[in-house]
Amino acid sequence: MKKVLLATTMFVAGASAAAAEVTISGYGRFGAEYVENRGAGLSDTIISSRLRFNIDATTETDAGVTFGARLRFQNDDGDVATVGNNARFSASFSGFTVSVGNVDTAFDSVALTYNSEMGYQDSSFGDSEAAFFAYNSKVGPANYMGVSATYSFGGANLYFSYVNPDQTVSTLPVGISEEIGIAADYTAGQFTVAAAFTSDAAGIVGNDIAFIGAAYAINDAANVGLNYYDNGTTAGGVDRGNQATIYGNYTFGATTVRAYLSDRENDPDTAYGIGADYALGEGARLSGSIQGDFNGNTAADLGVRFNF
Amino acid sequence: MKKVLLATTMFVAGASAAAAEVTISGYGRFGAEYVENRGAGLSDTIISSRLRFNIDATTETDAGVTFGARLRFQNDDGDVATVGNNARFSASFSGFTVSVGNVDTAFDSVALTYNSEMGYQDSSFGDSEAAFFAYNSKVGPANYMGVSATYSFGGANLYFSYVNPDQTVSTLPVGISEEIGIAADYTAGQFTVAAAFTSDAAGIVGNDIAFIGAAYAINDAANVGLNYYDNGTTAGGVDRGNQATIYGNYTFGATTVRAYLSDRENDPDTAYGIGADYALGEGARLSGSIQGDFNGNTAADLGVRFNF
Amino acid sequence: MKKVLLATTMFVAGASAAAAEVTISGYGRFGAEYVENRGAGLSDTIISSRLRFNIDATTETDAGVTFGARLRFQNDDGDVATVGNNARFSASFSGFTVSVGNVDTAFDSVALTYNSEMGYQDSSFGDSEAAFFAYNSKVGPANYMGVSATYSFGGANLYFSYVNPDQTVSTLPVGISEEIGIAADYTAGQFTVAAAFTSDAAGIVGNDIAFIGAAYAINDAANVGLNYYDNGTTAGGVDRGNQATIYGNYTFGATTVRAYLSDRENDPDTAYGIGADYALGEGARLSGSIQGDFNGNTAADLGVRFNF
Repeated sequence: MKKVLLATTMFVAGASAAAAEVTISGYGRFGAEYVENRGAGLSDTIISSRLRFNIDATTETDAGVTFGARLRFQNDDGDVATVGNNARFSASFSGFTVSVGNVDTAFDSVALTYNSEMGYQDSSFGDSEAAFFAYNSKVGPANYMGVSATYSFGGANLYFSYVNPDQTVSTLPVGISEEIGIAADYTAGQFTVAAAFTSDAAGIVGNDIAFIGAAYAINDAANVGLNYYDNGTTAGGVDRGNQATIYGNYTFGATTVRAYLSDRENDPDTAYGIGADYALGEGARLSGSIQGDFNGNTAADLGVRFNF
Repeated sequence: MKKVLLATTMFVAGASAAAAEVTISGYGRFGAEYVENRGAGLSDTIISSRLRFNIDATTETDAGVTFGARLRFQNDDGDVATVGNNARFSASFSGFTVSVGNVDTAFDSVALTYNSEMGYQDSSFGDSEAAFFAYNSKVGPANYMGVSATYSFGGANLYFSYVNPDQTVSTLPVGISEEIGIAADYTAGQFTVAAAFTSDAAGIVGNDIAFIGAAYAINDAANVGLNYYDNGTTAGGVDRGNQATIYGNYTFGATTVRAYLSDRENDPDTAYGIGADYALGEGARLSGSIQGDFNGNTAADLGVRFNF
Repeated sequence: MKKVLLATTMFVAGASAAAAEVTISGYGRFGAEYVENRGAGLSDTIISSRLRFNIDATTETDAGVTFGARLRFQNDDGDVATVGNNARFSASFSGFTVSVGNVDTAFDSVALTYNSEMGYQDSSFGDSEAAFFAYNSKVGPANYMGVSATYSFGGANLYFSYVNPDQTVSTLPVGISEEIGIAADYTAGQFTVAAAFTSDAAGIVGNDIAFIGAAYAINDAANVGLNYYDNGTTAGGVDRGNQATIYGNYTFGATTVRAYLSDRENDPDTAYGIGADYALGEGARLSGSIQGDFNGNTAADLGVRFNF
């Protein structure tokens, strides 16, 4: 069999960079996932896996504007097949990027918000429990249309996103609205701060959500941070309450240990997690975690993740 | 993240060309699309987009025959996901190409027929309103099987195509038939002529359609042309009438302006379009158009298209 | 249009091999397929085709472990579209490979078992008629989870596979079980031997199947072999009987002729096949066969297959 080899770095004919190119990148992960009390008749422990391919095409114009398009093919355990998601298009120039279609939203893109995640599946009960729109990795809504803009300068990033849940109708149904989000993050020396606000998040009228986070790099090996979320309301108007998550990690040699605690308003229980990564080189790692959710159930995972 | 970079041109080990290769090409386009009176409750203006990936695999035999196969993944606004279409296979030798499967048909492949198109979506009300089979870019009929042949020599191209709407049955249902098409185009100096004829087009018995077109390159910058169509009949036997489209375009610097008029037999109204492209380099362009359909409604588009 | 060219072999920047890479490989095949008495109202002769793309991503860690993931997109005549299958993940080190997900099973992977196949579609009535799990090339069961291991040393390969038809339930339904398979093959000089055993094959309780095969390379041009199968039982407990297949092939110049005979226990008829391949170079071939099934019906195929 003749193999078609797409190496990670390769010579390009001529002295100048190619004006148009297609890249395939992504990751694979697989391992054991334990979830206490997963459900009646269900197995608490399964092999959980994901394969993600991003296909990115770009063309750089004479004036230096880079047009791009991305399609993702993602397969998770429990799926029956693999289909591509909806496309995201972008135009970038000098740190400024505008995207349309299946866009990354401000609330989902801002720094720090997922920093308490751990294990080979990068999960955390300390993530925001709010409902909001994000890039759809798999099958998505039919007439969902987003527009986003990001601007990066110095150590700062600004994010704006707008999502229309159904751009084809002249009037959205009662209770459904466009989602508008703004966010910013900034790194100065050992400090990083981040904040995000989204109105009518997930298209739910009145579901206004917020995030503020700060992290401190104690030294080359140790980091600590605090994330605070206003999780907004449900479609029925019930307040989801606020949530605070503290986390830290420490690296010695190839090993990084991680921990977090998360507390929800009006909830007696505290979620927690402890985990460890062992770097295998070239972006591959062996990772495991033990986490407890807000209902007192324990989850654990141990597996491998590798990038390509 | 390690990026897998597929540059547009790259060195190949050894002095000879590779015998087997896979290429990914296609285009992205996005912009605003206005359609007057789109429908009750519908938004007249939407963001309309398309991402198209063609995956082409070829192998060249010792005797110089090139076998090829193509799969297309296309995502349009309004879709929920992206799936590949049905495959097209080909064998090429010395300007002669035979294809099977999801083939390009003669009527759809001949030169000039789409030359009045404009805007970032390459649309025109001056295109033939006939029903006929063409390459299916997305989900297609289950047992559709085509065979096509093209031959190129000098400035001429000959096209033949045969499509069986359901190759698995020994007798097609009443009113359904195989479609057979022939076409030719020829360029000599400033003149190009093209003609096509298809019987039982789209598998509709009695739907015989025809096209004849001519174009003249006045100079390096200006082109004019005339397309004439016999649009055949509907499945119910109603004559779709004839259609004539005149078009022209003029290029100055990076800008190309375009216009067309199209007239249908027994129809009081005339369709029209005026548009402009602004070349951004490397195959990218900003394009817009204002077009009027045969019912007096106006459509307009403005957006970007880039190839890769 | 800028083409993205993925040549079969290309330079990689730097002296060392790339740590992460993505390859696209596969094959196309198309031709005429005749099946006697295909069914009432059905056409006995159709154009049968397949396009298969394998997308393989690998990352090699510092310690020399190679993590891999594969996704396949396959389109066959009669399909309406092309979707990816479920993912297979692997970790390899020094001839030892462990896979999870949509794995290759021992019974399907062992040498010799498909050696009587012929024609451009690589088919044989002499293949085992047993039901067993194998790599799913297209849409597969939702919660199917396999684990397999292979070890290669000298001329020997050892195979182990385990498949849980539904890993999400704590107890499988009555009559359904996990499939466990083991196999081995060994080549020494002109001799190759192979054997496989699978219990509860295809997840059917009590469906224990077996294979033993031997092949002898008479010289550089001629090969003969014998495959013997215990085809297990149906889900209803009916014995599928044993099956023996003898086959041989002979190569002169670019041409290889092939033949087989297959006999089933308690079946008066004998299946047979004669075929020929004509090598076109670079892995492409023209192949045809005439085969007779156990019911006395004849099948024939003639077409092209090319790899990339």
